[in-house]
Amino acid sequence: MLLPHPEPLAHARLLTSPSVDPSVVRELERITGRPAGPAHATAPDGPFVYVGDVLPESLRSPRLLWFHSVNAGTDALLAAGPWPEGALLTRTVGRMGERIAQYTLAWVLAECQSVPEHTAQHSRAQWHRIPSELVGGRTAVVHGTGRIGSAVAGLLRACSVRTVGVGRTPREAPEGFDRVVLAGTEEEAAALADARWVVSALPLTGATAGFFDVSRFTAMRGASFVNVGRGATVDLPALDAALRAGNVRRAVLDVLPDEPAGPGHPAWRLPRTVITSHSAGITADEDVVADFGSCWEAVAEGRTPALAVDTLRGY
Amino acid sequence: MLLPHPEPLAHARLLTSPSVDPSVVRELERITGRPAGPAHATAPDGPFVYVGDVLPESLRSPRLLWFHSVNAGTDALLAAGPWPEGALLTRTVGRMGERIAQYTLAWVLAECQSVPEHTAQHSRAQWHRIPSELVGGRTAVVHGTGRIGSAVAGLLRACSVRTVGVGRTPREAPEGFDRVVLAGTEEEAAALADARWVVSALPLTGATAGFFDVSRFTAMRGASFVNVGRGATVDLPALDAALRAGNVRRAVLDVLPDEPAGPGHPAWRLPRTVITSHSAGITADEDVVADFGSCWEAVAEGRTPALAVDTLRGY
Repeated sequence: MLLPHPEPLAHARLLTSPSVDPSVVRELERITGRPAGPAHATAPDGPFVYVGDVLPESLRSPRLLWFHSVNAGTDALLAAGPWPEGALLTRTVGRMGERIAQYTLAWVLAECQSVPEHTAQHSRAQWHRIPSELVGGRTAVVHGTGRIGSAVAGLLRACSVRTVGVGRTPREAPEGFDRVVLAGTEEEAAALADARWVVSALPLTGATAGFFDVSRFTAMRGASFVNVGRGATVDLPALDAALRAGNVRRAVLDVLPDEPAGPGHPAWRLPRTVITSHSAGITADEDVVADFGSCWEAVAEGRTPALAVDTLRGY
Repeated sequence: MLLPHPEPLAHARLLTSPSVDPSVVRELERITGRPAGPAHATAPDGPFVYVGDVLPESLRSPRLLWFHSVNAGTDALLAAGPWPEGALLTRTVGRMGERIAQYTLAWVLAECQSVPEHTAQHSRAQWHRIPSELVGGRTAVVHGTGRIGSAVAGLLRACSVRTVGVGRTPREAPEGFDRVVLAGTEEEAAALADARWVVSALPLTGATAGFFDVSRFTAMRGASFVNVGRGATVDLPALDAALRAGNVRRAVLDVLPDEPAGPGHPAWRLPRTVITSHSAGITADEDVVADFGSCWEAVAEGRTPALAVDTLRGY
């Protein structure tokens, strides 16, 4: 990957897309030491840096030095047309692990502490004591032992939950996990049977499409299922059957195979399920500022930013 | 405190009140090595041990060796009549600190992750992304630096929340707290102004009745208020005004000055508030078994159980 040359970068204009909040624009101006302008229908005459969500065709210009995406995923951006030669692409990952871990713990504790039930009772002005369930000593099985899965497991373990990771290659247990078992083994099936929670943080690849199938769901014995990975890793009819049979106690799905789900989507009718509209890992304004800032610092020092995307490989 | 003599204890009958779950009764039989029977209208002819919630007048007999309460509070039990001379009284405290800490974290995360809003959207089959708020680096002020407050702070700190305790006497910060300030000082007011959450774990004493008054609520600058202590420590009209003015962002009240609250209670009409019917510290069946078990072990070894109550002092 080539970095922008210091000389044109020093003179480059800073442009931002309309979706970028004014408070973020001010921070970008502070970081780069220049005023920001909105993008116009045509690319500027001179070199420019662009911060935004999408890159309009008109700005796919050889004068684009650097595009910083306010999102983590850049697949749509790269699929929309050829990437301008030599332009740096960086992305916003933010505190994704932390966010998804807090999302997961929020829903785990919401179930054990009956948050939705108390909220409903309150709306009826009904005083009725509801016993809570302690999470300590129960087992969470987390599929995906990378950065996200590790953050999820680490936070659950801070509440004394036992954490079993499921991975696809034999390895030492990463941070946050008590132990790791191999996907597709007897050990995984035993862990699923023992689990109070099964959390998926799997990416979508050829190997994970439909991963949570009839066999995995029927191996569960009353676990609650949380999906913070990708929707297409789950066979929804199999989940539906497992919820009806009781193998799955409840489900919290942040993601679906097809998003956004319209009001007629069958997933809304799954029993004992909450769908949260792909909200678990939304990058925040502060993430955009922090991640652009660290990229800017790296480029200024002649280093390739850790958040740079290989535009040929796509990640 | 006198312990039951080993000889009559070895022959004592085990009786349980109707409120004790059969699964608990089986565990009590296992622990004591004898069958359990229900209590009848009159006390048995020989020595007996009783496990239950209330102690009927008819069982307040000199043959009662030991009463184990399935609850933590024994004030009502002792107020109901003279305690049979020489009878040991023990109680169930369970994992109260852990329970109340998980309750608090559940509601803190439920707010930051919009659990009630997602649940409501789901019921409308509405796909709408909601950004989350990270808890790390924000400040929680916890009033009460004893066992419960310390457990609450410790769990919040595991999520990288900064924890400030408020106590009534100068002391080292107990486990879980980054620092402790004195109640009624400028430092407390500054902590309240800086707080994202204010959690009360205060007991009710002469010094804490109406503790959360106009001055404390107006010192807050948008904190959410969680009360897991005692209801009468809060001036409800002052809380109402602070919620309307925005000094208090939201409130979660497990306790009220008068409980249970009937449907006409004004607390149900507090804005942005959830009342949870004194559910945060309910002792569970497993707590009864564990706490009775530890008392039994202590008595067998001739030690006074840590959960024994001084029936003259009342705690």
